[in-house]
This record gives sequence, C-alpha cells and structure tokens, in this order.
Amino acid sequence: MSWHPLPLGMASALLADETLQAMFAPKAELAAMLQVEHALAQAQAGTGEIGAAALSAITAACHDPALDHGALAKGMRRDGVVVPELTRQMRALLGPDHAASFHRGATSQDIIDTALMLRLKQVCTVLGARLGSILEDLGDLASQHGGQTIMARTRFQNALPFTLADKVQTWALPLRDLANQTPSYFPLQLGGPIGMPASTFGANHQTSAQAMAEALGLSAPAQPWHTDRRALGNIAHWCQQLATALGKIGADVMIMVQNPVAELRLTGGVSSAMPHKNNPVAAEALVTLARYVTAQTALLQSASLHENERSGVAWSLEWLALPAAIIGTGAASLTAIELISNLRLAA
Amino acid sequence: MSWHPLPLGMASALLADETLQAMFAPKAELAAMLQVEHALAQAQAGTGEIGAAALSAITAACHDPALDHGALAKGMRRDGVVVPELTRQMRALLGPDHAASFHRGATSQDIIDTALMLRLKQVCTVLGARLGSILEDLGDLASQHGGQTIMARTRFQNALPFTLADKVQTWALPLRDLANQTPSYFPLQLGGPIGMPASTFGANHQTSAQAMAEALGLSAPAQPWHTDRRALGNIAHWCQQLATALGKIGADVMIMVQNPVAELRLTGGVSSAMPHKNNPVAAEALVTLARYVTAQTALLQSASLHENERSGVAWSLEWLALPAAIIGTGAASLTAIELISNLRLAA
Amino acid sequence: MSWHPLPLGMASALLADETLQAMFAPKAELAAMLQVEHALAQAQAGTGEIGAAALSAITAACHDPALDHGALAKGMRRDGVVVPELTRQMRALLGPDHAASFHRGATSQDIIDTALMLRLKQVCTVLGARLGSILEDLGDLASQHGGQTIMARTRFQNALPFTLADKVQTWALPLRDLANQTPSYFPLQLGGPIGMPASTFGANHQTSAQAMAEALGLSAPAQPWHTDRRALGNIAHWCQQLATALGKIGADVMIMVQNPVAELRLTGGVSSAMPHKNNPVAAEALVTLARYVTAQTALLQSASLHENERSGVAWSLEWLALPAAIIGTGAASLTAIELISNLRLAA
Amino acid sequence: MSWHPLPLGMASALLADETLQAMFAPKAELAAMLQVEHALAQAQAGTGEIGAAALSAITAACHDPALDHGALAKGMRRDGVVVPELTRQMRALLGPDHAASFHRGATSQDIIDTALMLRLKQVCTVLGARLGSILEDLGDLASQHGGQTIMARTRFQNALPFTLADKVQTWALPLRDLANQTPSYFPLQLGGPIGMPASTFGANHQTSAQAMAEALGLSAPAQPWHTDRRALGNIAHWCQQLATALGKIGADVMIMVQNPVAELRLTGGVSSAMPHKNNPVAAEALVTLARYVTAQTALLQSASLHENERSGVAWSLEWLALPAAIIGTGAASLTAIELISNLRLAA
Repeated sequence: MSWHPLPLGMASALLADETLQAMFAPKAELAAMLQVEHALAQAQAGTGEIGAAALSAITAACHDPALDHGALAKGMRRDGVVVPELTRQMRALLGPDHAASFHRGATSQDIIDTALMLRLKQVCTVLGARLGSILEDLGDLASQHGGQTIMARTRFQNALPFTLADKVQTWALPLRDLANQTPSYFPLQLGGPIGMPASTFGANHQTSAQAMAEALGLSAPAQPWHTDRRALGNIAHWCQQLATALGKIGADVMIMVQNPVAELRLTGGVSSAMPHKNNPVAAEALVTLARYVTAQTALLQSASLHENERSGVAWSLEWLALPAAIIGTGAASLTAIELISNLRLAA
Repeated sequence: MSWHPLPLGMASALLADETLQAMFAPKAELAAMLQVEHALAQAQAGTGEIGAAALSAITAACHDPALDHGALAKGMRRDGVVVPELTRQMRALLGPDHAASFHRGATSQDIIDTALMLRLKQVCTVLGARLGSILEDLGDLASQHGGQTIMARTRFQNALPFTLADKVQTWALPLRDLANQTPSYFPLQLGGPIGMPASTFGANHQTSAQAMAEALGLSAPAQPWHTDRRALGNIAHWCQQLATALGKIGADVMIMVQNPVAELRLTGGVSSAMPHKNNPVAAEALVTLARYVTAQTALLQSASLHENERSGVAWSLEWLALPAAIIGTGAASLTAIELISNLRLAA
Repeated sequence: MSWHPLPLGMASALLADETLQAMFAPKAELAAMLQVEHALAQAQAGTGEIGAAALSAITAACHDPALDHGALAKGMRRDGVVVPELTRQMRALLGPDHAASFHRGATSQDIIDTALMLRLKQVCTVLGARLGSILEDLGDLASQHGGQTIMARTRFQNALPFTLADKVQTWALPLRDLANQTPSYFPLQLGGPIGMPASTFGANHQTSAQAMAEALGLSAPAQPWHTDRRALGNIAHWCQQLATALGKIGADVMIMVQNPVAELRLTGGVSSAMPHKNNPVAAEALVTLARYVTAQTALLQSASLHENERSGVAWSLEWLALPAAIIGTGAASLTAIELISNLRLAA
Repeated sequence: MSWHPLPLGMASALLADETLQAMFAPKAELAAMLQVEHALAQAQAGTGEIGAAALSAITAACHDPALDHGALAKGMRRDGVVVPELTRQMRALLGPDHAASFHRGATSQDIIDTALMLRLKQVCTVLGARLGSILEDLGDLASQHGGQTIMARTRFQNALPFTLADKVQTWALPLRDLANQTPSYFPLQLGGPIGMPASTFGANHQTSAQAMAEALGLSAPAQPWHTDRRALGNIAHWCQQLATALGKIGADVMIMVQNPVAELRLTGGVSSAMPHKNNPVAAEALVTLARYVTAQTALLQSASLHENERSGVAWSLEWLALPAAIIGTGAASLTAIELISNLRLAA
C-alpha cells in the first residue's frame, strides 16, 4: 500500500514525535477501525442481533486480516472514506454466511470517529505522562537553582529582580492545571446513517452502545455527535494551551540566554558560519511549535461547523488539522524535556 | 473625549449587539477600572494599609469623577495603557493627603485585567440568558412542527427522511450543554508590578485579594495570571463553540429554504434586482458570524503566549481580538432569536 | 441613524487612524454608493437608455439627499444589503417619472463593490503617501546616525557588528518595493443580477462600463468579479506585507532598546508601578498591529471562495475583515512615523 | 536515515500529490543543497577565490556523496538547520586540502533558502502545466455541453437561468489569469552570516551572485532577503488564489449535483450504509483543500515578520507551513482534473 504522508523534509525533525505519529499512521488507524467493528459485533452478539458463529468469524477475521491496501487507498480516494472498501474486503473474507453480520447498522462515521477516539485516549495518556515528567524536571530545576536572582521583565524592559524559583513557578502553574485537566472524555460514536440510532439499531441501541463503550474504554454519549464536534475541539483546545505553556518556557529562555542577558545558557546549537555562536534551538522550536499548534487548532475549530447530518468538507478538514495539532504538541513536550535538561546557570 | 472605535460601515448592522457593545465602550471600561481601584482601597482599608479618611476620599472620587478624557486618550497612546494617566488624574483629584492611597501597590495590569473580568461576567450572564431563550424557542418549534417529515442529508446528498424534531434535537443538544457550561470563573488580578504580590502588598496580600474578589463578585486565583491567559482563552473557546452551534442552525436553514428543497421558508430578505427572491439573510449572517468569531478567537489564542513577566505585544492583541469575538457571539445570539421566530413551514 | 460600530474601548487608540476610519464610516459608504448610482445614470444617459431629464433629476437627488437612516439600518439588517432600501428611498425622492431610471439594470453588488473600490483607491493613495514619508524618515535616520556601530543578531544571539545604516537598509528595502507596488487596480463592478451584463444592460454594456469606469477613475475589468475576489485579496495582501515590514521595525527596536542592549532609546512609555521604566510602546504596537493585520487578512482570504453566482456568507465576511485589515495597516503607518521620530541613540 | 514525515493516516490520500511531495522529501532537499554548494564553488572558482583542483574535488564530492543520514538528522535537531553537519561531512569527504573551499563565506540560510527556491521553481512549472490542462478540460466541457440551461443562484436562492457555458466562464477566468501570473521570481540567497555579502564575499560578491543565479536558473536579488520573506509570501498567495479558484468549482458542483438540483452528476462516491447515495467526494475535497491551503498560507504569512538579522522561530515556521500549502494546492489541481473528467449532465 502506498500511502502518501505529507513530507516536510529536514524540518520534520522539528515535528518529530515517533510515538504519537505511529498512532496516526494508516496501520494504527486500520487496526483501531477493526477493533471498533469487532466491539460492535460483540455488542450485537450480546443482544442477539448476530449469532455466536458470526461473532467467532468476525473475531478471527479482525485479527490481522490480509487486506488489499492498494484497493483501500483507491477506495479512500473514490469514496472519501475507507470504510466502504474495508467493509467490502472484510465481508469477502467472512464469506456469504457472516458477511451481513459485519458493520451491521453502522455508518462509516461511526467507525472512523470511534477509532479516532481510541487513539486520542492513548495520545492523552502519553501527553499526560510527559507533562508529569516536565513538572518534575521543573521542580528539580527550582530546588537546585531556584535561589538564583534573575531579572523580571515587563514590556521587554527590566522591571525588578526576583528569583529563578519565581520564574519557574509561573511556568509550572499552568502546566500543573493542564495536567489535572488532561482530557478524559472520549465518546463512542454510534449513530447509523443519519445519527438516529434507534431507527438503525432498534430497541437494543442503548444496550449495544453501552457495551461497546465499556469494551473499548470509551464514554457513551447522550446522543451521536456526527455534527457536534465539541469533544474534538476541547481536546485540541487543551493541546493548544499545553503547547502555549511550553512555548512560554521557550520564549523566556530565548531571552534569558541572549548574550547581554546571560542569566542561563543552553547547550547545543552550532552555526555553520559563526563558530562562536550558541543558538537556542530548542527554545526557538518551542515557540515555533506553539504557533504551529495554535494555527492547526484554529483550523480544526474552523471545521467545527458541520452542515446537514454529515459534512464531508468539514469532516475531512478535521483529519488534516487534528493530527497536526496533536503531533506538534507531542513534539513540543519532547522538546521541553530536552530543553530543561540542557539548561545551565550562566556562569 | 474622542475615542476612535473601529467603524465597519453598513456591515456594522451584522455585528450589532448594543448591550454587549456598551460593555466594551470606553465609558464602561473606565467605570469598571474605578470600581476595581475602589475595591482595592476598601480591601486595604480593611487591613489597615490605608486610613478611613483616605477610603472616604477615594470612595467619593471614584463616583463619576471629572476626568480629562483627551489626556486619557493621549496617555493611552503614550503609555500603552490608560492607568498611569488615570491614576495621575485621580491622585490630583484626591490631593496630596490621599493621593498615595490610590492604586497602592497595584500595577496597570491588575486594574485592566480585573476590570475586564467584571465585564466578562456580565457578558456571560447576558449570553446565558439569551441561550436559555433560544432553547425555549427551539422547544416551541419542535413541539409545534416537530412531526413534519424532512430529509436528512449527508455529504450534501439526500440520505433518509426524518422529522423536524430530529433536526431540532441536533441543534439543541450542543446549546443545552453550552448553557450548562456558561463560564463562571472570572478571576481577580492582583499581582503588582511583576506578579509577585507578597513583595508588593506584603503579608496582607491574601486577605486583600480575598476581600476584593468578594466585593467584586470574582474568584480569587491561586496565583496572579499576568502571563497565564487561560481564563480568557476558555471564555473565548466557549464563545466559539456557541457561535458555531448557532452557525450550524444558519447553515442548515440556508439549505432547508433553498428553492428546490423548500422544507422551510424564512420571512424577509429583499433583492434590489430580483423581486421574486427571498434571501435567507439571517441564516447567512449566522454562518458569517460563526466564521468571524472563530477567526477572532483564533487570534486571541495566538496571543496567549506572553513572554517575560508582562508582554505588551500579546496583551494589546487580546484587546483587539476578545471584544470582537464576544460581540460577534452576541450578535449571533440575537440573530438566532430573530431567525427562529421567522421560520415557517414551507407550505 | 444609529449605526453600531464595533467599540474597542481604550484599545481603540491603538487602532486609531481617523483618516482611513472616516472612509469606512456609513456616511462615506452611502456617499460613495450615490456617486456610483450617479455615474451609472450618466453612462446610461450617454447611451440613450435614460433621458436627459432623468439624469438631471438623479444628479440633483444624489447630492446630499434627505435619507431616512433608521429605515436604511433596518433595511440593511432585513435584506443583508442596504441597496434595496436606499433605492426605494431614492426612487421615492425622484418620483414616478424618474424612479425607474435610478439603479437601472444594476444589482446591489454592483453598487456596493464599486463603492468599495472608490474608497480603496483613496486608502491606497493615503498609505502610499505615508510610506513615502516613512522612507524619507528612514533616510534621514541613516544619514544622521547611520555610522553608529551596532550588533547584528541571528537566532536571538549576537552575531557580528555592523552599522545602523545596514540595519536601516534592511528595513527600507521592502518598504521601497511596496511603495513601488502600491495597488493601482481598482475595478468597476457592473454585472447585473447574475453577473451576465449583456442580458441586463444590453448591447451598450461595454460602452456604459467604460464610461462609468472613466468617470469614477476605476478600471473596467474583462468580466464582472461578483465571485472572483482576487482584486480585494491582492490589496489585502499588500497591506499585510506593509504591516509586516513596519512590524519588523517594531520588533527590532524592541530589542535594540532592551536595557542590556541599549543601542537605541525611545521616548515615552510610562509605567504606573515602576517610574524607572521606559516601555517601548510604539514598537510593541507595530508588532501587535502586524499580527492583527495578518489575522484579518487571513480572514479575508478565507472569504475568497464564493459559491454560486453570489455568496451572502462570504461577501458579508469580507465587510468585517477588510476594513479591519486596512485600518490596522493605517494605524501601523502612523505609529511607524511616530516611532521613527522618537528614536534616539542610546547615549 | 529515519526522517519522520508527518503521517496523516487515511486522510493522506486527500493530500496526495506524489510529484510535489517528492520535491519536499529529505532526499530532494539534500540534493538541492548540494547543487547550491556546487554552484557557489563554481562561482568562486570563476573569480579565483578557490582553485581549479578544489572545484574538481567539490564537483565530484557533490555527486551523490555517501552521507551519514543519522548524523544529519541529529545535527538538524541540535543545530536547528542541517547545514553545519552537512558541511562537516562534506569537508571530511573533501579532506584537508579542499575542505575550506566548501561552503566558503556562506551561511546556512544561503544554502537552505536557495535550495528551497530551486524546488519552488519546479513546483510552479508543474502547477502551471496542470493549470493549462484544467483550462483545456474546462474549454472542452463548455464546448460539449455549454448550451445546457442551468440555474444561476445568488445568496443560495434561485436567481435566473443561464447556461453551463456561462458558469464555466466564471470558473475559467480567474484560472486563466493565474496561469498568466504563474510565479517567476525565484531569488538566489547569498548574504553570508548577517546578510552583508560584501564583508563576507568581498569585492567579487556581485559577480559570484550573478554567476550562481545564472547557473541555477534563479534571479539575483538587489539585496539578500534573509529577513524579507515577500518572495515566499507571494508564491503562497498565488497558491491560495489557485486553490480557492479550484475550490469554487468544487463548491458549485456540490450544489449542482444535490439531488433536488440535479443539474450535473458526478461518478464515484459510495456510502457504506446507503447504497443509493452518490457522494460528491472530489467536489468536497476541492473545498476542503481550499480551506486547508488558505489556513497554511495564513500561517506562512504570520511567519513573515523576522526579528533581527535571522529569526530561528519564524524561519522554522515557514518550513512547516509552506510545503503544506504547496502540496495542498498540488492535490487540489489533481483533484480538479479528476473532477472535471467525471462530470456528466444529469440525464
């Protein structure tokens, strides 16, 4: 299968977060989709809508099936979603006896949105753990060098002296709040073709949804959210605030390591033309990434208005914007960890 | 005083929300600032930092003082904030005995940010009330005409029939959530020149802050938020979600009143060239405003990274972006009320 | 008439450009519309489509007519454009004999877009003149103090010494280019209801359009541009580049006047809490305005996709975004003039 | 070498443009950089600054050198640019005799910006050719089916009938203009460490720059453009206008193929839940891509303010935004070609 990820040349090193990137790779996406289809079948077996033999067959088929990835890519481009072609291939694998029990009552969006939520939950676990580690590192910095007197600056002018511990406190407070607010609402999507689940899934809808949500570790929402994208917007908003709080550290460090200020120094950062220079590369990268994440989040929010019962335009735009915002936030978290470990008192 | 509000010509009618606009007019801003200065003096009288005579004088002076508005405007432009000149004038009015008791220990940002929060609280009360009224109107619409069969559409194509009640339910759910989440955290700002209140306000800082917050109906935050602008970002994020939820109604109605669809009709909307036309002006305006609010919110979020202990650049950018986002949301809420009242079944 | 311009409180002083603001005030907008209607009548009298008596009556009526501004505002809100109500009032003033000769064959968009172009031409004349003055001031600065050695900085670190003249040269070059590229394409709009002028204006269309364009000092485009908004986008793009080139001066000066750098100093900028400080207010404002103009330009460009033969949504969004981008650019040009005149060598 | 391109999962199929993507892959980027270094050596051999033997050695070394890509990636992350590590490796390959003749006088930005321009020139050639093909296809569509009567729509309501040829004309005009305005200014960058080429390259600077520009097929600018990024901004602006003009076709087609409108139909677009549906996937994708390109262009323009003599933050942001804008435009051009070929009259 020749997926065509967006290449960013050398600059991709700035956006590097192998862990989060892997979660948005086609392989992980397909695996999550099959996990959702499987959970649907389990739930429908529970309510008796499909038989035990069908469930067994689906369970087996969902385990690393031999898919035709070229056809999946073609299907994606033709249909705007990969699910119709994925369903076709899976039903072919299942054969005529069980084909109809696969993807029963569901719509592409149910599978795609739920598979996204599965991975967003993983993303937030990773980011939450890194945030904890950054807070520890800041605590260490404050306890080791916090007594150092530095200059507080307002409107780019010297204001009054305070200490490195004071500065670190202004860095840590928003991060601590954000750690406590790590997103925890990852709703299942199960609405059927037009978001009216009762008409598709019948009387058992609530039972199935509850069972699926439990099996997948997700929340069961009051109503399908096919056109109500606030759950995504809230996660992106948290990412934007996190990337900004990390970007502030970068912006402050850039100034603290300026030659005539020289309150801190930062190891690394070679110039090809001026060997005497020591460029604050990681600090700059944090500011760059904060601006990048803010822009991609804004694009996601601009895609939050979905007309009708499903908006192909707005939905596709989410797919381009959200992974970029998240991977940018992940890269910022890795860069922050690196930056803090490379900070030294100036003398 | 010749303040120079941004004129938008005829288009200003689209952004019209007299109630919210008045809250961001210079008059309201100055009144809120004096309310904050007064609350500071009260708190400091409570801790004994200033005397009773000083408090009386300040109380009297803060009540509609005769300010030189031309000088305030000049001061604003010269200093980037109006507080230094306002303080100078107020101290002149108070005379040498009590001058030093005014604005004691505070920094411009304490006054400006707190005065903003006072008005944001009012804004959210107004928007919350309108949201309640919109939800009622939607409830009425559903109970009167909810049984009407209409078409559900996905990816701009007819999908399956459902009812107007189903459609209204997808409009109401996010609005109901947003009504329940109307912002309620409006923190006091009291940090002094560099956000280290203990050094400025001394041992009484917590007591003063608590007293001020209570007197003003605000929250007392754990730490000054001079550079941590998440409280503003969260309010704007709520506005963006509200404007988007209203914009979705507009987008759907635009399609439902299209001539060949004709599920609904909307009164009003004359064309200068084609008398047979009936333009869905209010529906279009809701989409326009959703996009406008989303863009201004994005600008606000892009201003959330404040370098050093006070960023003149980022702070000023907030002043341009936030009122625009809020007034746009207010205009959307008024437009939505008007739109719903003008909706009719097509035949 | 109670138009409701967007108030921005004290911050409006940052966006103040009385000259450009007046061009976007309702008064100027209506005057420009009547100028366009008059030019249309003149052109149609030239081709014999309307009579000499009708032209005389229209000429008289267009000169400061007694309009009901309250009804215009109501019409704007009801119809989404002011032209239907303006036409109704003008036709009433003209009486039954000449009513039909007013706004003959035209659509609201013809009048509104052309009236906008009339004012954009004035805007560019003003901005072009200010740009010339900024270039002169920079030339003076370089010839007076250009020999001063200062530090070149790359990636926020000291690189190598150069001179103030070198620095000023990097400021001046883009400004000089932009001065040479001051927008000069301001197309007439004359397309009738659906942008097919031949069907509305008949065989005389090209003649009328040519005559109108000449009378108004505008260009006659190859085709109506009802949905092709590149002319607006190009003007906004120029504004964005101009505001950015001025913002760069602000960003550089902020660093050059930092206390430990102290290559330059800037008069003005008082702090309410720290009398020893001297805040670089005008320099900050230039950066703020560059970011503001960039965001409003981005909003305008996002409104450049107009579906169908006229998009109410996208068109209205232009009205909110473009004046903001332009007035922000104007404010930046005034601030730059002020900044340069307040720059001093540090010692 | 494990570069980490941004993966976008299945959605990458929407952004697929293998041709343009390859131009931004690390391999192409390194090849372009070596081409620039080689041209520099040639120019310096021409002026006698380096010897013939050195040039021979550099010519040989630049031809597919055995680079340590892992070290390059590490260098990129450490130094914020890959050039220092690339130079180190190339000098090691050249050995002590010729090492100093490689990258002589140049700074990383000279190499990186020039290597970018080499590829932007290729990009514009490709996009220009596709634009020509789209215009031909539109011409064919108009000549085959142009007589078909369809409805012109304004403000989402039926206005008056016109023909498919009329509609196609509004699509083609901006595209024809844009084809004529395909970017042709691709400036060489050669400024040395602080953009003062005379001090680095000596008296021969103009000669060298002229020779390099000629050898590389680029323009020689009046002055280095290290901090003046208008050339990039102009190319992105053209891309934004192109993507928008293509997006308009998509937006119009979405409406023309709506079931109750049914003026056209579009082959392809299967639903997993509703086999009767025919989703206008390519039309939606054109709108999505227009919005995507507009947002990435806005991000690029927001990075056009570079403080000091080189801004690490703004420069890095360009690397993230510009390829995304360009590849999105490329994907739109491919999608448009596909869309037009799949358009059919409805009956």
